[in-house]
Amino acid sequence: MVRLQLLTRSEHDRVRVARGEPDLTLSLLADMCRLNALVAVKRAGSGHLGSTFSSLDVVAHLLFAELNVAELGFEHPGRDVFFSSKGHDVPGLYAALFGLGVIPEERLLRLRRLGGLDGHPDVGVPGIEANSGSLGMGISKGRGIAWAKRRGGQGGRVVVMTGDGELQEGQNWEALQAAAHDRLGGFWVVVDRNELQSDRPTEEILALRALESKLEAFGWDVASCDGHDHAALRSVFEGFREGAADGPKALVAHTVKGRGVSFMEHPAALAEGGGTYPWHAGAPGDDAFERASRELEDRIRAGFSALGLDPPLFEPVAGEATARGLEGEPESGAGTRRAVTDEYVVEAYGEALLELGAKDDRLVVLDADLASDCRIRAFELAYPERFLECGIAEQDMVSTAAGLARHGFLPVVNSFASFLASRANEQIYNQASEGTKVVYALHYAGLIPAGPGKSHQSLRDVSLLAALPGTTIVQPASAEETDALLRWAVEDADGNVALRLAIGPSPRRIELPEGYRAQVGRGNVLREGRDGVLLAYGPVLLHEALVAAEQLEDDGLGLRVVDMPWLNRFDAEWLAGEVAPFEHVFVLEDHAPVGALGDGLRRALDGRTVEVFGVEGWPACGTPEEALRFHGLDGASLADRIAARVGVRSST
Amino acid sequence: MVRLQLLTRSEHDRVRVARGEPDLTLSLLADMCRLNALVAVKRAGSGHLGSTFSSLDVVAHLLFAELNVAELGFEHPGRDVFFSSKGHDVPGLYAALFGLGVIPEERLLRLRRLGGLDGHPDVGVPGIEANSGSLGMGISKGRGIAWAKRRGGQGGRVVVMTGDGELQEGQNWEALQAAAHDRLGGFWVVVDRNELQSDRPTEEILALRALESKLEAFGWDVASCDGHDHAALRSVFEGFREGAADGPKALVAHTVKGRGVSFMEHPAALAEGGGTYPWHAGAPGDDAFERASRELEDRIRAGFSALGLDPPLFEPVAGEATARGLEGEPESGAGTRRAVTDEYVVEAYGEALLELGAKDDRLVVLDADLASDCRIRAFELAYPERFLECGIAEQDMVSTAAGLARHGFLPVVNSFASFLASRANEQIYNQASEGTKVVYALHYAGLIPAGPGKSHQSLRDVSLLAALPGTTIVQPASAEETDALLRWAVEDADGNVALRLAIGPSPRRIELPEGYRAQVGRGNVLREGRDGVLLAYGPVLLHEALVAAEQLEDDGLGLRVVDMPWLNRFDAEWLAGEVAPFEHVFVLEDHAPVGALGDGLRRALDGRTVEVFGVEGWPACGTPEEALRFHGLDGASLADRIAARVGVRSST
Repeated sequence: MVRLQLLTRSEHDRVRVARGEPDLTLSLLADMCRLNALVAVKRAGSGHLGSTFSSLDVVAHLLFAELNVAELGFEHPGRDVFFSSKGHDVPGLYAALFGLGVIPEERLLRLRRLGGLDGHPDVGVPGIEANSGSLGMGISKGRGIAWAKRRGGQGGRVVVMTGDGELQEGQNWEALQAAAHDRLGGFWVVVDRNELQSDRPTEEILALRALESKLEAFGWDVASCDGHDHAALRSVFEGFREGAADGPKALVAHTVKGRGVSFMEHPAALAEGGGTYPWHAGAPGDDAFERASRELEDRIRAGFSALGLDPPLFEPVAGEATARGLEGEPESGAGTRRAVTDEYVVEAYGEALLELGAKDDRLVVLDADLASDCRIRAFELAYPERFLECGIAEQDMVSTAAGLARHGFLPVVNSFASFLASRANEQIYNQASEGTKVVYALHYAGLIPAGPGKSHQSLRDVSLLAALPGTTIVQPASAEETDALLRWAVEDADGNVALRLAIGPSPRRIELPEGYRAQVGRGNVLREGRDGVLLAYGPVLLHEALVAAEQLEDDGLGLRVVDMPWLNRFDAEWLAGEVAPFEHVFVLEDHAPVGALGDGLRRALDGRTVEVFGVEGWPACGTPEEALRFHGLDGASLADRIAARVGVRSST
Repeated sequence: MVRLQLLTRSEHDRVRVARGEPDLTLSLLADMCRLNALVAVKRAGSGHLGSTFSSLDVVAHLLFAELNVAELGFEHPGRDVFFSSKGHDVPGLYAALFGLGVIPEERLLRLRRLGGLDGHPDVGVPGIEANSGSLGMGISKGRGIAWAKRRGGQGGRVVVMTGDGELQEGQNWEALQAAAHDRLGGFWVVVDRNELQSDRPTEEILALRALESKLEAFGWDVASCDGHDHAALRSVFEGFREGAADGPKALVAHTVKGRGVSFMEHPAALAEGGGTYPWHAGAPGDDAFERASRELEDRIRAGFSALGLDPPLFEPVAGEATARGLEGEPESGAGTRRAVTDEYVVEAYGEALLELGAKDDRLVVLDADLASDCRIRAFELAYPERFLECGIAEQDMVSTAAGLARHGFLPVVNSFASFLASRANEQIYNQASEGTKVVYALHYAGLIPAGPGKSHQSLRDVSLLAALPGTTIVQPASAEETDALLRWAVEDADGNVALRLAIGPSPRRIELPEGYRAQVGRGNVLREGRDGVLLAYGPVLLHEALVAAEQLEDDGLGLRVVDMPWLNRFDAEWLAGEVAPFEHVFVLEDHAPVGALGDGLRRALDGRTVEVFGVEGWPACGTPEEALRFHGLDGASLADRIAARVGVRSST
């Protein structure tokens, strides 16, 4: 088993007070942050190292040299405000904040854990200035903050980092034009131009072309430099400070994805990955971790020596390298699952899509730079002429699909549920209003994985589509059901279908009744019971429902468990028969308690009591166990909650 | 009373077959379309003449000369596809389609009426290729169609017109980069560069700067010319046809808003309006109509003469100039209301905002180019330093507000509900997740006015925000309640508030009980009754509820009517007391039947039957009477529906 060791805050202090050659010092601090970020990610079992490393020289330069926060602290109204719009590079920022003493060690080692550090930035964490992680909002927020600073007169600059792929998101261009129009001074944007987005080159996915010319055309003063060269960064920032006081300024920082660990660096790593970059997300395995940490440690030792300091002290981290049970994260690093089986609903989705594509050449698949996570890479390779890569631009993707659908194609549109149902909501409405049919695959729906945090957890998507006329919303519980529902959506449905999919592996195989076939509006009884009926959907919460039923059985209570994949369409007769024998009807939502299956059943059952267990409030960040337990939705909690209701009611 | 007269299709045919000098012919056809569009708008009582007229030379040039649709028709797979992304210029397109014989006369004269022509483009109308009206989606759709044409190999070009102000919407830049990346040939964009958006100059609202350079930086071949010069247009289109086969092409057509009617032309009209352009929306009064039509008729006569044709025959239109009761539309031309009082909730909103702004200098108002319609112009004039004009960029506006809120300000964010709650949905989620407070003013909520059609009618907004933790959604019924609820939102609420507002004048003053004050979660009894209780909200449907109650009283049934402005927050005790005496609880939604007050009450009342009347399916376009009747939500229909329920139930 690998040993983890990190550099404490005092080691950072030693480097900072040494006041050695500034560029050597900053390079060393950046590497120290790289090592600590690597340790935090390894321990979390997930994280985005590629762009953490590409951005870290800029982040270290800003926090340790350019900005006033080390001096003023993060509560001072005159502080410089820095945050990263892309957000998934936050392990580097956490490491820098740790180095400054803003974040304590126990919290750094609880990355992606309940009560620790969110997988994407959240203002609940000290030093974090903005929630980000869903792309493209940062420049707008920075504009608002710069406006507030100008109006308030407290001083301080605003510096927003963005990715380069992120600039495909249209909101950036709204914000760029607005900030230029406002002549906002003290507002800088730094583009981490590492030339890779997710796992492929930006120029391949959706070329940015001459980025500097674009930014200039939008009215910004633009500079560019090597984003790992501290002398060059210093010179650019000096120029910005001394430049026109009343206009926003952009730096295109040319960087290397994976910088600092030779085998993670672009372009070598891309070539080694056969055209896909392997270190965008996810924690490295033990071997890779050891190679990477050794390389960083060696360079850090050399840096200490070059500054004339005693050798660095690496502090061993207690406990396991990777928190228990956090294996098996999807390629996105989107999260993890406790018990792993080979039963991913999303794998079944990718396979069924491939088969349906072979049968019907009207079927076109659209992607917004999540092809690996959405399991549509196989379709892309098999039918490149019917695969549309839209880049990180969900709105454009949906309206493009609308155009395709009007002209004879059947588009299957893919993204994470939290982005697709929400950011492209009006475009979906507009498409639907044309009376065409599109299949929306809403990946990463629900509470789990909970490591990435609330920007990625989608607990509103059903409510966001529920009032759309003619749209059917379904969520399958198993590979078998995924296959059946996708086929129904493509071949039989006569309007839009939103297919909600869990992204992680399933904790257990949900076994459907023998002879199962998809029947509109009808669920599947997974387990019999006489004291109450619980309807749930998706592999994550059906597993918890079954755990609850198993526990209740030990307590002498029988809970009927029904897989109900139809979230807004019900067969009235079936439903009436299903609930008739029961005093207690429970619904378990992998969603907020508002706007999903429970509300629909209350409408359909007109006057029956329906008790809903859903994700109340903001979704918790943490391991699956932590998040489910936090919300009272793990099997044991559910059993207690159900027993309390059935018991109380039965005694009356 | 003014007389309306138009030019029939045969007059267009005479001009077309004459085969006179092409540029004279096209100018004449454009003027003929202007006259017919003017007549249609006058009769409808609403419409957007300014940009209809600026775009009409391009539209006429395309339809009568450049495109193949006059020849192939609108069903042919090889046809050239043309549509306008901004959509509100559709009266000109309707006029051209009428001139081509695609739209019959009786339908042209039923603009914005049920079964007539939608106020914004809808594919249900012959010749309309895409639903538009909510801005910024057109280039994406065109991209999809161009892709479909390339893949299908049927031939035909795709030409999308956009506004210039519309280009502030970020989705355009997503689409522009994507189409360039795809090297889509036969895909043209024409920007109607009339330099005014809504009622003020684009350069004032949010400067587009050097538009041509921007488009070039995004990889497009760009031309520009005078958009009223047919020789220049011909030359540009020839160049596009002969240019590179594999790349998209953009024309910046420099045009004059209001072109063709001297007193509507920019910049004279802008100067006359004291800095705001008066002809963006709404129908002209009788005098203005007569001056405009006389001017057009004179030029049309001269055109016929110049082509050596017999004088044109102007056909008188039967019936009233303006359909009955269609006076009093808001400046937006957003629609009309039957009976006009001086009781606009939105006027009260504007006044209260001004007073609150005087008391609290943290209050900042944000606008997305709808300042007149949203009644925030007075605030802008009084507190320009606390007014942020964001242009047509709702996502940027919301994230800007998020930044302001994090730094001590209280942002009040304004747009139409259908755009704000939907297009900026993910940005609202992100803002809320930071734990700050923002007031979202959702203007133009609900079914009425119904003239603009489904792009503008907002019947999903409550459902779109209902699952957002900590957000309170309210809709006031009167000026008094608007004032009270806005004060509560600004001064007392401890989280986000979404304030739904009707945009039109009220059909009656909704009188609140004496001593009224806003109490969280409690409604107001407007009328007593013993046979059932109906909860409704907003001035439009409370009026219908009261009409229904009055009618039911005549039939001997007593209906208690409650104004319930709290759409997702209920005082449990009050609510229980309110419904306890009644067997029948009815809810009337100015919303889809899913996701709003009815669902909330069912959750709160746990097991009680709640009967919901809402807007089922797609909202109808038409006059208020037509739309309400169509959905069975006018007072008379409601009375019948309620009587049927109460009668049936009472007899059991």
